[in-house]
Amino acid sequence: MPSYTAPTKDMQFVLHDLLKVGEADIRGYDEMDRDTTQAILEEAAKLAENVLQPLNAVGDEQGCKLENGVVRTPDGFREAYAQLRDGGWLSLDADPEYGGQGMPYVMETAAGEIFASANISMAIYKGLTHGAVSALSVHGSDAQKAMYLPRMIEGTWSGTMNLTEPQCGTDLGLIRTKAVPNDDGSYAITGQKIWISGGEQDLTENIIHLVLAKLPGAPDSTKGISLFVVPKFLVNEDGSLGDRNAVSCGGLEKKMGIHGNATCVMNYDGAKGWLVGEPNKGMRAMFTMMNEARLAVAVQGLALGEVAYQNALGFALDRVQGRAATGAEAPERPADPIIVHPDVRRNLMDQKAFVEGARAFSLWGATLLDRGHRAGDREAEDMISLLIPVLKGFLTDKGFETTVNAQQTLGGSGFTREWGLEQFVRDARIAMIYEGTNGIQSLDLVGRKLPMNGGKTVMAFFEMVKGFIKENEGDATLSQGFLDPLKAASKDLQTAAMYFMAEGMKNPNNALAGSYDFMTLFGHVCMGLMWARMAKAAQAALDAGASDRDFYEAKIATGRYYMARQLPATATHLARIQSGAEPVMALDAANF
Amino acid sequence: MPSYTAPTKDMQFVLHDLLKVGEADIRGYDEMDRDTTQAILEEAAKLAENVLQPLNAVGDEQGCKLENGVVRTPDGFREAYAQLRDGGWLSLDADPEYGGQGMPYVMETAAGEIFASANISMAIYKGLTHGAVSALSVHGSDAQKAMYLPRMIEGTWSGTMNLTEPQCGTDLGLIRTKAVPNDDGSYAITGQKIWISGGEQDLTENIIHLVLAKLPGAPDSTKGISLFVVPKFLVNEDGSLGDRNAVSCGGLEKKMGIHGNATCVMNYDGAKGWLVGEPNKGMRAMFTMMNEARLAVAVQGLALGEVAYQNALGFALDRVQGRAATGAEAPERPADPIIVHPDVRRNLMDQKAFVEGARAFSLWGATLLDRGHRAGDREAEDMISLLIPVLKGFLTDKGFETTVNAQQTLGGSGFTREWGLEQFVRDARIAMIYEGTNGIQSLDLVGRKLPMNGGKTVMAFFEMVKGFIKENEGDATLSQGFLDPLKAASKDLQTAAMYFMAEGMKNPNNALAGSYDFMTLFGHVCMGLMWARMAKAAQAALDAGASDRDFYEAKIATGRYYMARQLPATATHLARIQSGAEPVMALDAANF
Repeated sequence: MPSYTAPTKDMQFVLHDLLKVGEADIRGYDEMDRDTTQAILEEAAKLAENVLQPLNAVGDEQGCKLENGVVRTPDGFREAYAQLRDGGWLSLDADPEYGGQGMPYVMETAAGEIFASANISMAIYKGLTHGAVSALSVHGSDAQKAMYLPRMIEGTWSGTMNLTEPQCGTDLGLIRTKAVPNDDGSYAITGQKIWISGGEQDLTENIIHLVLAKLPGAPDSTKGISLFVVPKFLVNEDGSLGDRNAVSCGGLEKKMGIHGNATCVMNYDGAKGWLVGEPNKGMRAMFTMMNEARLAVAVQGLALGEVAYQNALGFALDRVQGRAATGAEAPERPADPIIVHPDVRRNLMDQKAFVEGARAFSLWGATLLDRGHRAGDREAEDMISLLIPVLKGFLTDKGFETTVNAQQTLGGSGFTREWGLEQFVRDARIAMIYEGTNGIQSLDLVGRKLPMNGGKTVMAFFEMVKGFIKENEGDATLSQGFLDPLKAASKDLQTAAMYFMAEGMKNPNNALAGSYDFMTLFGHVCMGLMWARMAKAAQAALDAGASDRDFYEAKIATGRYYMARQLPATATHLARIQSGAEPVMALDAANF
Repeated sequence: MPSYTAPTKDMQFVLHDLLKVGEADIRGYDEMDRDTTQAILEEAAKLAENVLQPLNAVGDEQGCKLENGVVRTPDGFREAYAQLRDGGWLSLDADPEYGGQGMPYVMETAAGEIFASANISMAIYKGLTHGAVSALSVHGSDAQKAMYLPRMIEGTWSGTMNLTEPQCGTDLGLIRTKAVPNDDGSYAITGQKIWISGGEQDLTENIIHLVLAKLPGAPDSTKGISLFVVPKFLVNEDGSLGDRNAVSCGGLEKKMGIHGNATCVMNYDGAKGWLVGEPNKGMRAMFTMMNEARLAVAVQGLALGEVAYQNALGFALDRVQGRAATGAEAPERPADPIIVHPDVRRNLMDQKAFVEGARAFSLWGATLLDRGHRAGDREAEDMISLLIPVLKGFLTDKGFETTVNAQQTLGGSGFTREWGLEQFVRDARIAMIYEGTNGIQSLDLVGRKLPMNGGKTVMAFFEMVKGFIKENEGDATLSQGFLDPLKAASKDLQTAAMYFMAEGMKNPNNALAGSYDFMTLFGHVCMGLMWARMAKAAQAALDAGASDRDFYEAKIATGRYYMARQLPATATHLARIQSGAEPVMALDAANF
C-alpha cells in the first residue's frame, strides 16, 4: 500500500523563504507567520495522513453506488468528510461575514495540495463546494448569500457546478437546459446535465446546484446563458430544509479513475431554481470562479505527482537490484538499492524537480490571486489571468507524466494495484481534461490572454524575468547553471510570442496550431524562474547560517537539474511552433 | 464502444511499396506477393474485428478468476482462442518440420499488430507460446522438440516464460528457484515465480513452462542460471497427457490493465522439469528469443496507439463543437466537427504520424530479423540487435503517449469506460514495463549495443542514413522538408554517441545518465528515416500513376508533419545528454 507524508517543510520554504508571505503587503498576510502556517499545515497533514489517505484505495476499489436515486460514497467517506467539515477545512479562506476563517487563498492552496495528494476523490467534493461558494459570493443577491453561504461554508451543505450537457462541453453556446419563469419569481429548470461531480452523495444534508440554463428567447450562443441556484432540498424561510426539489441523479459514470467521487448524470424536471446575477450573464459568473478553480486543478496535478514521487522514492531506496557501475555501494547486501543507477535517478530527479518547482509556481500563483482580490492590485490580477492556463495545462500534463514516471520506477510492481501507483496515474488523468481540457487552456492562453491589455501583461512577464536576470548578474550561485538557461528559455518564449503576432495576423491557424506548445514552453519558463528564485532563497538561507544545510543545498542541486535537463525542451517547442499551421492543416479531413 | 478496422492497406504499402518484400533475397519472401499478403492480412483482420475486438471490453470488465487452482478466462476467450488456433495463427511462422506454415517473421509481425490492436490480453497468450516455441526450437533437444513443438505450434498446448521472482526482476542473478537432479535425468524444480503471463488458464490442454532455475552449486550470478521445461501435465511417451505436475497457480495479480490476461504467481513444489540446453547457460537461451519477444512488445505499443488513434479520429470527425477560426465549415450544423480546430488536428497528426512511422519501423525490423535468420546475413542480425532496444523503448513509450493523446481528443468521454479509450491507456502501460523495462532497454542500447563490434554496427547505421541522404540529394519531394531535418537529427545522434565515447570513458555514469534520452533520440532518427523512405516510396507510386492518389499524398504530408513537428525533439535530448551525470548524481540518496 502506498504511503503519504505531507511536504510541510517544503511548503514552509516556499511560503516563507521564497514568497515571504509574512512580509507581503496584502490583507491577512500579516497573520501568516511561520508558526501559524506551520500549525495549519500540520493539522491538514494529520487529517490527510491519518484519515484521508487510508481511504484512498478503498474509494478506488469500492467506487460510488447509485441505489434508488441515492448515491452511496465508499465506506468511511462520510466519517472522513465529517472530519474535514468539523476541522473547519471548508471555511479556511471563506468570508468571515458568513462564518469563514478569512485566511488568504494561498493557505487554501497549500492545504488543498495536501488533501488532493491524500485522497483526490474526497478533495473534489470539497473543491466543488469551494467553487460554488465563490460564485455565489460574487454574483448572488444578499438574500441568496444569507440563505446558502453559511451552511455551505460550515460544510453542512455542498455545492456543485452544472455546465456540461451531452451535446456540449467546451461549446456552452449549445446548452439546451431551459429555465421558464414561475409566478413566484423562481424558475422551472428542465434539462439534463452530465459529468456533475458530487451531483448526488450522502456526505451533506443538502446540495446546492449551480446550473447554467437558457431563459425563453435567449440568444443562441454563450450570450444567452444564465446561472441558477437549484437546491436539492428547498430551503424554508427559517433556514430549515423543505420539500425535495425535482432534481435527481439519473446515473453514475464509470470512469478510469477518481472512483470515490460520484460523477453524476443530473436530471432537472422542472426543478425550482433562482436566477443568480443578471439574465444572460451566466458565463461571466463562471469566469469569476474560473481562476481559482483552474488553479485548484493545477494543484491536483502537482499533488498526485508528489504522492507518486514519494512512493517511487521509497521503492528506489528499498529495492535492491544490480550494482552501481562505479562499484558496489551496499556490498553487504545481495545488490545495491536501485537509486544508485543513473537512469533510476534521472527519473527520480525529473519527478522531484517537477513537484518542487510546481509547488512554488502554484503558491506564487495563489499569492497573485490574493494580491488581486485582497490588495486590489489590478496588475497582479492580470498576471494571474495570464498564468492560469499555463498553470492548469502545464501542471496537470506534467503531474500526470510524473505519476507515470513514478510508476515506472517500480517496474512490474508499478502495474499492480497493490502498490497503488497505478491509481495515482488513473486519478491524475482527469486533471488534464476537466475544468477546460488542456487544449482549451492553450487556446485561452494564445487567443485571449496573450492579446490581453494589448499585450502589456505578457510584456510585464517578460520584463519580470529580464529584471530578475539583470538583478542577479554575477551572483555566484545563480551564475552557475541558472541565469543562462533561464535567459535562453525566456528568449524562446518571446520568439514564439513574436511569431504568433506576425504570422497569426496572416492566418489565425498559425497561432492556434502552436498553442499547445506555447503553453508548455511558457510553463517551462515559469518553472525555470521559480527554480532560479528558489535557488536564490536557498542560498540566502545558507548564507544566513541555516542549520538544515542539506535541505537548502539539495534545493539548489535540484534546481540545477531542472535548468540543465528540463529547460532545454523550450527549443523543441519553439521549433514546433515555428513550423506553423501548414503541416498541421495539410490533410483534408477525409484523408486522415 | 470502441471500434477497430485493421490497417491492411497501410500494411500493404509498407510491405510492398516500402520494403518490397516480394523482391527481397530472403528465403520465403518470394511467396509474399501482394495477393498472398493481402489474403493473410484480410483473414487476420476478419478474426480480429469480428471475434477478438468485441471481447476486448468483456475481458477488461470480467478479468480472470482463480477458483480452486483453476484460472477461468473471461467469457468468450476459450472460443476465440479456439478460432485463433484453428485459423492456424499459432503456426504462421513456425517450422514446417513441426507443423508450422514457415512464413517469414515479418508476416507474423503484421498479423501480431492486428491481434494486439483488437485484444491485447488475448494476443499475449498467443505471444508467450510463440516465445516458448522459439526458445525450444533453438535450445531444445530433438526429443524435446518432438515432444512439445507440434502441439504448441498447432495451439493445443501453450507456453510460458518464468523468469521473475519476488526479489528479482531485472537482476536475474538473484534467482532462488532450485533445480535438483532426480535419478531419472529430470530435475525437481522448487521455488516461486511471479508475473507469469498465462501461467494458468483454461484455453489449452497443457501448458509448457520454461523456467529459469539454479542447479546445486551454480555460481551466484546470471552465469549460474539454467533453463528448464516444466509441463503442467507430464507427457507420456506416446504424446498423451499423464500426471499433473507439481506446479500450481498461487494467485492472480490485480493489475492496471490487460485484465483478460492471467498474470500468475506460480509455485513450483518439486515439479518435474528437464534441462533445456546446457547447464548454467539459461541466460543465453533467453537472449535468443529476446529480439523477437521485444519486437513483439514494441508492436503492442504501436498496436494500441493505432486502435486509440482510430477511435479518436472517429470522434473528431463526428463530434461538433465550436467553429473553425477561419469561418464555419459545416454551417448547416449547430457547430463544426472538432477536427477543424488546429489543436485537435495537431494532436491527431501526432498520433497518425507516430503509428504509421512505427508500423514501417517495426516491419523493417522484422525483415532484418528474417534476413539474419533466413538469409544468414550477420550484418542484418547485428543491425536488428542494435535497433531492438530502440524499437521496444521508443515504440512502447510513444505508443502509450499516443493512447493518452487519443484519449484527450475525446475530452471527458475519454475518461469514461464506455468509450473504451481509457482501457487502451491502461493496457498500453504494461508494454513500457515488461520484457525489460524501457530503462533497461536504454542500458542495453548504450552499455551493450553501442560498443558492439567495436562500434561498427552503429557506424553502419549512420552510414545508412548518410547514404540515403546523399542518394536522394536534389530529389524534388525529399528536398522539401525531409532531408534537412533527417540530416540534423542524425547529426544530433552522432554527437550524442561521440559524447558517450569521450565522457563515458572518464565516468560510466556520463553515458548511463543519458541512456534514456539517447534511446528516444535514436528512435526519432529511425522514425525520420522511415518517413523519408516512405515519402520516396509514395512519390514513386504517384509517379507510376497509382490510382489512389489521396492515400499517397496523405502519406507524404504526414511524413512532412513528423519531420517538422517531431524530429526537432532530438535537440532537446542531445542537450539533456550533454549535461552529463553531474546534475543527475549530485544529491546524496539521503537528501532526496
